Amino acid sequence: MKNKFLKGTLAVALVAAFFSSCKPKDSNDVVSGDAAQKAYVAPGKYDEFYNFVSGGFSGQVSVYGLPSGRLFRVIPVFSADPQSGYGYNEETKPMLNTSHGFVPWDDQHHTELSQTNGEVDGRWLFANANNTPRIARVDLKTFTTKEIIELPNSAGNHSSPFITENTEYVVAGTRFSVPPDDANGDVAINTYKQNFKGYLSFVKVGKEGQMDIAFQIAAPGVNFDLSHAGKGKSHGWFFFSCYNTEQANTLLEVNASQKDKDFIMAVNWKKAEEYIKAGKGKKQAVKYAHNTYDEKTHTAKSEIKTEVLVLDSKEFKDICYMIPCPKSPHGCDVDPTGEYIVGSGKLAALIPVFSFDKLQNAIKNKQFDGEYEGIPVIKYEAALHGEVKKPGLGPLHTEFDGKGNAYTTFFVSSEVVKWDIKSLKVLDRVPTYYSVGHLCIPGGDSKKPFGKYLIAYNKITKDRYLPTGPELTQSAQIFDISGDKMQLILDFPTIGEPHYAQAAPADLIRNNGQLKFHKIENNNHPYVTKGEKESKVVRQGNKVHVYMTSIRSHFAPDNIEGIKLGDEVYFHVTNLEQDWDVPHGFAIKGADNGELLIMPGETCTLKWVPKKTGIVPFYCTDFCSALHQEMQGYVRVSPAGSKVPLAFSLGTNLPAVK
Amino acid sequence: MKNKFLKGTLAVALVAAFFSSCKPKDSNDVVSGDAAQKAYVAPGKYDEFYNFVSGGFSGQVSVYGLPSGRLFRVIPVFSADPQSGYGYNEETKPMLNTSHGFVPWDDQHHTELSQTNGEVDGRWLFANANNTPRIARVDLKTFTTKEIIELPNSAGNHSSPFITENTEYVVAGTRFSVPPDDANGDVAINTYKQNFKGYLSFVKVGKEGQMDIAFQIAAPGVNFDLSHAGKGKSHGWFFFSCYNTEQANTLLEVNASQKDKDFIMAVNWKKAEEYIKAGKGKKQAVKYAHNTYDEKTHTAKSEIKTEVLVLDSKEFKDICYMIPCPKSPHGCDVDPTGEYIVGSGKLAALIPVFSFDKLQNAIKNKQFDGEYEGIPVIKYEAALHGEVKKPGLGPLHTEFDGKGNAYTTFFVSSEVVKWDIKSLKVLDRVPTYYSVGHLCIPGGDSKKPFGKYLIAYNKITKDRYLPTGPELTQSAQIFDISGDKMQLILDFPTIGEPHYAQAAPADLIRNNGQLKFHKIENNNHPYVTKGEKESKVVRQGNKVHVYMTSIRSHFAPDNIEGIKLGDEVYFHVTNLEQDWDVPHGFAIKGADNGELLIMPGETCTLKWVPKKTGIVPFYCTDFCSALHQEMQGYVRVSPAGSKVPLAFSLGTNLPAVK
Repeated sequence: MKNKFLKGTLAVALVAAFFSSCKPKDSNDVVSGDAAQKAYVAPGKYDEFYNFVSGGFSGQVSVYGLPSGRLFRVIPVFSADPQSGYGYNEETKPMLNTSHGFVPWDDQHHTELSQTNGEVDGRWLFANANNTPRIARVDLKTFTTKEIIELPNSAGNHSSPFITENTEYVVAGTRFSVPPDDANGDVAINTYKQNFKGYLSFVKVGKEGQMDIAFQIAAPGVNFDLSHAGKGKSHGWFFFSCYNTEQANTLLEVNASQKDKDFIMAVNWKKAEEYIKAGKGKKQAVKYAHNTYDEKTHTAKSEIKTEVLVLDSKEFKDICYMIPCPKSPHGCDVDPTGEYIVGSGKLAALIPVFSFDKLQNAIKNKQFDGEYEGIPVIKYEAALHGEVKKPGLGPLHTEFDGKGNAYTTFFVSSEVVKWDIKSLKVLDRVPTYYSVGHLCIPGGDSKKPFGKYLIAYNKITKDRYLPTGPELTQSAQIFDISGDKMQLILDFPTIGEPHYAQAAPADLIRNNGQLKFHKIENNNHPYVTKGEKESKVVRQGNKVHVYMTSIRSHFAPDNIEGIKLGDEVYFHVTNLEQDWDVPHGFAIKGADNGELLIMPGETCTLKWVPKKTGIVPFYCTDFCSALHQEMQGYVRVSPAGSKVPLAFSLGTNLPAVK
Repeated sequence: MKNKFLKGTLAVALVAAFFSSCKPKDSNDVVSGDAAQKAYVAPGKYDEFYNFVSGGFSGQVSVYGLPSGRLFRVIPVFSADPQSGYGYNEETKPMLNTSHGFVPWDDQHHTELSQTNGEVDGRWLFANANNTPRIARVDLKTFTTKEIIELPNSAGNHSSPFITENTEYVVAGTRFSVPPDDANGDVAINTYKQNFKGYLSFVKVGKEGQMDIAFQIAAPGVNFDLSHAGKGKSHGWFFFSCYNTEQANTLLEVNASQKDKDFIMAVNWKKAEEYIKAGKGKKQAVKYAHNTYDEKTHTAKSEIKTEVLVLDSKEFKDICYMIPCPKSPHGCDVDPTGEYIVGSGKLAALIPVFSFDKLQNAIKNKQFDGEYEGIPVIKYEAALHGEVKKPGLGPLHTEFDGKGNAYTTFFVSSEVVKWDIKSLKVLDRVPTYYSVGHLCIPGGDSKKPFGKYLIAYNKITKDRYLPTGPELTQSAQIFDISGDKMQLILDFPTIGEPHYAQAAPADLIRNNGQLKFHKIENNNHPYVTKGEKESKVVRQGNKVHVYMTSIRSHFAPDNIEGIKLGDEVYFHVTNLEQDWDVPHGFAIKGADNGELLIMPGETCTLKWVPKKTGIVPFYCTDFCSALHQEMQGYVRVSPAGSKVPLAFSLGTNLPAVK
């Protein structure tokens, strides 16, 4: 029993030790004189990098500038957002549809920028949802979510949305194994070993970014945690860390921390692709939502798809291999050359670095240590380049600067450590405040990192900022890594809980066709109103469609009568402005809905079911001109069965009807 | 006709002129060398001030540090927030109840800190909702919303939530006049002049902050825009700006901009109080929600109240007086001495400053120019201290530094202008990028401003930051006002759309009993679980109550069987941690709900209605320890009518039941 609990007990002790020593320290001594100038972006000047930060439990993606740490945008992705109307207006509701129905929230953990030839290309950003497994694609011309695909046979979609070097695939692995969707899932939880599986999804990305599940690999029921694609020489392979190879289903804190080594699973996806092309994939009946937003109609639709192709890892012996990796591996990171795979055991005190060449030789020479659930296990030493000795406690994630250096975060010892990829020597270390999780270097997981800055996303905040009651913001720190030594230059708070983040040079995105407004002549929304003269109110049974326009500083129409209790009113508001940064908002008193925030040239629809008779004001909610406050109107709501005729106007009074 | 449209036409021309000249300028020439050092707050150091910024169309309040411009907290107030569970969990749903039912969004325009003797006291922050009229109270010990009161007889609750100098009252005025709630509201919109009213609400604030509507004043149907209480010598009075004294109901852009002067309404609320005490208030039947959050039970309740006391401004001739004020007055600001009332006509090119003493004399001597809708109109010159001549175009708001200076924002000419309150001479001016709306000086509307910084909340962003598609963040700018000349030190982006903001010295709030966690022994939640041994699962018909605990790093129980389709499952999760900054999250796959984000010592409840049979994982969504990822569990969902018995466990397997 002693041995059995050792690893878990050690871990608990480590964590307890950390927490008891997590007293405020004065970090000013590590801030040198030029830090202010380095972090400062003068008014009117631009930041050097965009930083795309996962929102964690906010469900959204946030966009910061580097080095200023300023928040430029929260992009609604997986959570309903009453402020923008995302998930509330009729156009975007389908984006949050799933096989479980409408889901208004998720836990967004990792972001990944699209790549061409292994280099960040500035086209799209992918984001994963952990809780109800999904992948989203954000278009970086508009900074809006264009597509969301659900992943069947999965739960706890954590090792996602990492990509291959030409964005051929976005992957997604299962962290919380479950019975496959087509099996009888009504089984005892303690039949985990027999019935639970961990599926890996390979989602194909088309030329315009469109996603579809190409195939899934049915893998053992363990917890797939993180992943990264091979690149350069290792292009064609994907690497997934996994823990809970004990296959525990209760008190994982102890029961999933028993073994000294879990695994990194190496997946030869090119070989898997061949099997699929050869028709070896097995069709499985499933249900998953595929939601797409059409730029021409300004409207999303949700389709439920019913089938995936599956390859079983037990059956196809040459696509999956297990590499032993110490103590609950978490981060799984591949260096810019594609030769080195860094495994970070979150309860370990060393970092194993594996060699892709050695791995290939080991496979060729069958240097195996038996099998795990039907998958060959490579001998640890056979794939190992070497270990970074005593780097710190609790390594989590590693990024690269393109100059031969790796940077690893340590949660338990609360620091970032810089080390040489080839010699495995530790070169520098800096404390973090407190307990860093992920880190990001611009382009730091690509073939061509941009370097210069390193951002640490810390898990514990405590006394770093002015207190705000029991709930505190999360804390990030920016380091200048252009010199030999890392230099802390700024603490900045972040929204939600950041996990992985990516960054790209400002010009790569800024000069890549940023959309400033929607051209009104290209607006093919089914309820568009392209000019004030076309504005109207149309009744279809108890549905009333208001074709409304907004332009500084009035709505057309702005007086509407003849609405009755029992009606469903749809305000289709077209913003006629054709200039940058002139959105209009639309809100109506008492609505059980969000607002509309309508970009120039766009049409958005608010559904409103009035619950009381009387006069109900509506107005523009986004300050648009000196006469913004005058941008208001009234709707008269009469009792059901009223004889008040449908009528609307702008600038002239409607005939008085009692 | 020419004259009739002049004011509107001029305004449109002004706005057009501004927009055509709103080209990017390089503002670096106005940033001097020490700006970086002045705005920089080194890692580990604290900001000097808290800045409580209205979220506008986000519906929330955001908390920034000054001078760093860093966002420390978004406090959920009027919008549902899936990330924190606010408006999603069972405890907080009642907070968003209204007489219209559950309302998940609003437009939050102004914040006001509580005061004692006219000085900011750091206890509470009040916030208004524009769209569905409400006032909220945020407790600054926890930075959470404790109370929301709806305002009957109102719409477009804009001139709110300004307070009297001992926080006796929070006021709220009607911007969009409507027929009173007890009238037949089903009237023609063009009967505005006969049927529409603008009510002013006086909400009494108790010693513990508890709110109740003391009385309302029925006022003419105009647009009450902004307000401020008198202070010092003018304590006992309140001042409300109003526009649309034309009483237009369509195309207000033109039709509400006809008159050269609208009004500031001076209200003698002490006199009104006397009438109420004397039983002169008329009872009116209305419906409004009053929502309160109980710190002991961690739970909100919503009551619908049915009556208000009303005084009619036409009937009680000595409580309301109209002071003419040029061109659609917007801001209505009272200097620290209480003697000067600044009216800002948003289409004007001058600023009138009124004298409280002269106003009192004018009333005494009946220096009236007839009546407006039964209310005496003071002669303009009789109340006027003087006019600030040619200060800029489109004055909006004024704050004070306590040294005899006033600072006014100009939307159209896009600048902040400093002027001497007594001499009315312009002392300094700085450009803003672009088109400033509100401004804030710490304590700047109190008797004792703290000065030092001035923050401009700008309405147009354009090229100030890296672009993010059609939608851009809003932009604020911080100026150092400690010297004779204002010095721009930082641009910082803000969430939602900031309108009014308040700021207070950090220590005033930090040292005022900040709550770090909830004491578990004081947790009187009806479904609290005070220790793991008490955790259990209880079935009551088709309702299943899960009494669950969370502590690093497991839930108790973490395996649950016997849930069936058709059940409503309530996860009542108590976070047993008793330390600062150790929240736990709770999410379950496929839920059509937000997450739970549970502060230490708190209990929160997630309602879950499973829609599929099978094994459903749940997990902790807030990274809490090195073994956070292991903090997960499973629920088995069986078909309706299944014989699988209700069972739960932690650390040991449940007996297998097929």
